[in-house]
Amino acid sequence: MVSDRQFGVISIVGGTGALGGGLALRWARAGLPLIIGSRTAVKAAEAADALRTAVPGADVRGLQNLAAAQAGDVVVLTVPFAHQQPTLEEIRPALAGKILVDTTVPLVPPRVARVQLPPEGSAGLIAQRLAGESVTVVSAFQSVAADSLQGDAPLDCDVLVTGDKAEARDVVVALARAAGFRAWHAGALSNSAAAEALTSVLIFMNKRYGGLHTGLRITGIPDDAA
Amino acid sequence: MVSDRQFGVISIVGGTGALGGGLALRWARAGLPLIIGSRTAVKAAEAADALRTAVPGADVRGLQNLAAAQAGDVVVLTVPFAHQQPTLEEIRPALAGKILVDTTVPLVPPRVARVQLPPEGSAGLIAQRLAGESVTVVSAFQSVAADSLQGDAPLDCDVLVTGDKAEARDVVVALARAAGFRAWHAGALSNSAAAEALTSVLIFMNKRYGGLHTGLRITGIPDDAA
Repeated sequence: MVSDRQFGVISIVGGTGALGGGLALRWARAGLPLIIGSRTAVKAAEAADALRTAVPGADVRGLQNLAAAQAGDVVVLTVPFAHQQPTLEEIRPALAGKILVDTTVPLVPPRVARVQLPPEGSAGLIAQRLAGESVTVVSAFQSVAADSLQGDAPLDCDVLVTGDKAEARDVVVALARAAGFRAWHAGALSNSAAAEALTSVLIFMNKRYGGLHTGLRITGIPDDAA
Repeated sequence: MVSDRQFGVISIVGGTGALGGGLALRWARAGLPLIIGSRTAVKAAEAADALRTAVPGADVRGLQNLAAAQAGDVVVLTVPFAHQQPTLEEIRPALAGKILVDTTVPLVPPRVARVQLPPEGSAGLIAQRLAGESVTVVSAFQSVAADSLQGDAPLDCDVLVTGDKAEARDVVVALARAAGFRAWHAGALSNSAAAEALTSVLIFMNKRYGGLHTGLRITGIPDDAA
């Protein structure tokens, strides 16, 4: 259990999706105060109600995405690649001075099992450009199989945390560990390209080897290395 | 032990370096017939002599790089990024119709812990462009810590094998397993960007967490999945 004030309030923009909803579940269980953001306040409120049912006593509210971003101390963006730009343009006024955790994977349908990094280098770098210099973008959670967050099995996927400010990475490493992951400082924001690209490899392997839920583990490092 | 004729003769161009020498040691122990290529025939012969001392009975010869590529059925390129282009231009006449295993990681000193993928997308794609269409490029072994190949400890790093032809990937998956790795089909050659980028992340983590030899493991898949 993590102190419920360690991170302030975590807002999950796109929090009704599979990844956002799964992270919300794990963080609610860890006792963290949450806001679930969605494109409509109604859907957000429904998701918050459902989470309180799943986790009695959970400190969670539902708000429209922009209001959610405004009310959050740390903002986590969990939307598909195609929605990354419009969503960031919408919530940008609410992000100044905050940590934005970008989880975007630049999958380009229909060939999602093929690495197709954007010309900017990575979705994380796109997020930084769109959010502006007053926002500290940290990239994480790209390779997490959203399904694995449901239920309560241990999470068999490490989280690579990239960002240009080490103190902001510290926060996100701690957030990922609060959710039950092994999580690591993985370098500059440009290094998000590795985790983003690896996600297409895992999608390929899930198909190639037949319905698996593959994940990433870093070997040669103790679970609690700091 | 793998049949010594399963792969034909494996030529390691740049085989006196840390990665090439380490792979040679593991493959020699597996009984595979090898040629070690180097920029001079003298250095190559010395490396072959040393390998026969380390692995009595090893079927290994040393040849200058171009002669090594000519004599090999499968050619493995293990040179630094800066040498990839000149080496491929030299050995290209010997590669037609063969599998070229590219291990190049596009590290750009001095910031080797920062992902800096080339404009072409990956070093693997550069290799294919330089080698030409008559050559089947398969990319692998990028994230292997060369040190770990010395000695005989189990290898704690999976190998992601990418290439546009599944049958050629099959050969390289089997070669990697013969060396003692877990190894996986990881998709099209463009997916080599993932393993290349991840290498900079591992270098970052080795420094950040203090002298480790981190590696990659894919979770959620049986060791012997085929």
